[in-house]
Amino acid sequence: VRTSLTRERIEFLTEDYRRGFIKHCGLEAVRVKRGLFESHVLIGTHHRTQDNFIHAGLMATMADHTAGYAAFTMVSEEFRILTIEFKINFLKPAFGDALRCRSRVMSKGRQIIVATSKLYDMRKDHETRVAEAIITLMAVPGEKIAGA
Amino acid sequence: VRTSLTRERIEFLTEDYRRGFIKHCGLEAVRVKRGLFESHVLIGTHHRTQDNFIHAGLMATMADHTAGYAAFTMVSEEFRILTIEFKINFLKPAFGDALRCRSRVMSKGRQIIVATSKLYDMRKDHETRVAEAIITLMAVPGEKIAGA
Amino acid sequence: VRTSLTRERIEFLTEDYRRGFIKHCGLEAVRVKRGLFESHVLIGTHHRTQDNFIHAGLMATMADHTAGYAAFTMVSEEFRILTIEFKINFLKPAFGDALRCRSRVMSKGRQIIVATSKLYDMRKDHETRVAEAIITLMAVPGEKIAGA
Amino acid sequence: VRTSLTRERIEFLTEDYRRGFIKHCGLEAVRVKRGLFESHVLIGTHHRTQDNFIHAGLMATMADHTAGYAAFTMVSEEFRILTIEFKINFLKPAFGDALRCRSRVMSKGRQIIVATSKLYDMRKDHETRVAEAIITLMAVPGEKIAGA
Repeated sequence: VRTSLTRERIEFLTEDYRRGFIKHCGLEAVRVKRGLFESHVLIGTHHRTQDNFIHAGLMATMADHTAGYAAFTMVSEEFRILTIEFKINFLKPAFGDALRCRSRVMSKGRQIIVATSKLYDMRKDHETRVAEAIITLMAVPGEKIAGA
Repeated sequence: VRTSLTRERIEFLTEDYRRGFIKHCGLEAVRVKRGLFESHVLIGTHHRTQDNFIHAGLMATMADHTAGYAAFTMVSEEFRILTIEFKINFLKPAFGDALRCRSRVMSKGRQIIVATSKLYDMRKDHETRVAEAIITLMAVPGEKIAGA
Repeated sequence: VRTSLTRERIEFLTEDYRRGFIKHCGLEAVRVKRGLFESHVLIGTHHRTQDNFIHAGLMATMADHTAGYAAFTMVSEEFRILTIEFKINFLKPAFGDALRCRSRVMSKGRQIIVATSKLYDMRKDHETRVAEAIITLMAVPGEKIAGA
Repeated sequence: VRTSLTRERIEFLTEDYRRGFIKHCGLEAVRVKRGLFESHVLIGTHHRTQDNFIHAGLMATMADHTAGYAAFTMVSEEFRILTIEFKINFLKPAFGDALRCRSRVMSKGRQIIVATSKLYDMRKDHETRVAEAIITLMAVPGEKIAGA
């Protein structure tokens, strides 16, 4: 049976989401369900390009990291999630005040998990999808990756 | 004929490389030739994951941005470069003290430019390739993208 | 305004879909709407691998070609569609009696069109999604590609 | 130590390469070394598009299948190779009389193998690279995939 996530697991993932590089980028978890993870970032000038667009690298970071946490919602606590690869298409320029990312697990095998991430640019009065990614992840028992 | 880059163009691209999000991430240009761009970043704790690896998002940012500047070396000054999409494979965990990225233009059409980026993890006594990306870019006349 | 397709255009695209390599592979168009294209193939032993699975190459061909025709439904008749690149994930082994592909245009710029293709393996009593692709296409005026 | 392949293994892989869909497409193995696999196909009208170019689907099939056999050269005989995903860029139109594909293993982990495939269009008096792919593969013990 598909059990739903415990409150403790949701709180853990919400906190664990924003550490290291992700904290440096200002990303925050905003919604956590089994197979789904959403995140948000308020855009500042340090997120932009020389032409004032939101940088593709920030969007890629958000697409990858949020997909990883969507995968975390599908595995038990002793597993870590590694990104094998991802691909992201930039559909139109992003220049708004905030970004939102919605990641969903599309397929879960014993080890390989495939997720999609959709990124939305939040402008004054509406939001529009600006990027779409497919991310291939791998669930690995924690003792196999002792950390660096 | 394939002219080489002027010293002014090299200086411009080297400075222009590190603005906004790229400055926030600490990336620096280190080598510029026609069709080739190399960058470098010293790794701090704000670049790492909760497991102390270098974050995939930083590597993706470096792969994308450096490829974009490799493309810049192939077009005249009135063009801007947009990323259409990219794909990146993470070949092994990265946990060293610095990253290096080497981007090369593989194919240049009238509008579409395809580049590859190779990322190297610089550890105590050696370096090892940790990621490889293919990036599809588009050269657009500057007046068509007025900025945000 | 978004006009719907004429009956003539639908008939043309349905016929044009299955020529050359696509005819050799046995693919057929089964549904055509603005922004949407569906195709079908009955699987024979000449579509399989040495292990009797449906070959990934057939699925990639179907994902690419059907996405191209989904793009055709969005442009006027003088345009041709070229594939710039695509990426496909194989979610589970396919071994059924037929494949179905549903391609949708996700984003249409002036030149660049991005589509997704979902592939379904049709087994005795049910069907299951076996692959998902993102395809980047380019609309080019027909006179610019005179053919080979 | 890296042992080289036995003559028997090379003969087996050369024969095994062209079965089912690959035979239907006319692809042939032409060179086999540890970590490297090359293939070839003579182009007929049944490989082309409605515009007389070589079909992207044939190139994708060749890129995927040849990469899979490059991976086969790196594992022992009880393993099978599955494609997890691939991405291919089409660098210029292909319209020649034959295609050649060179696939190399770029990275080999315990389970995950990453390879690249380069495709060359063989025209009257020269050849030119027309596509480049990255392929993510998985080595799986044969008894785990009993076939369909």
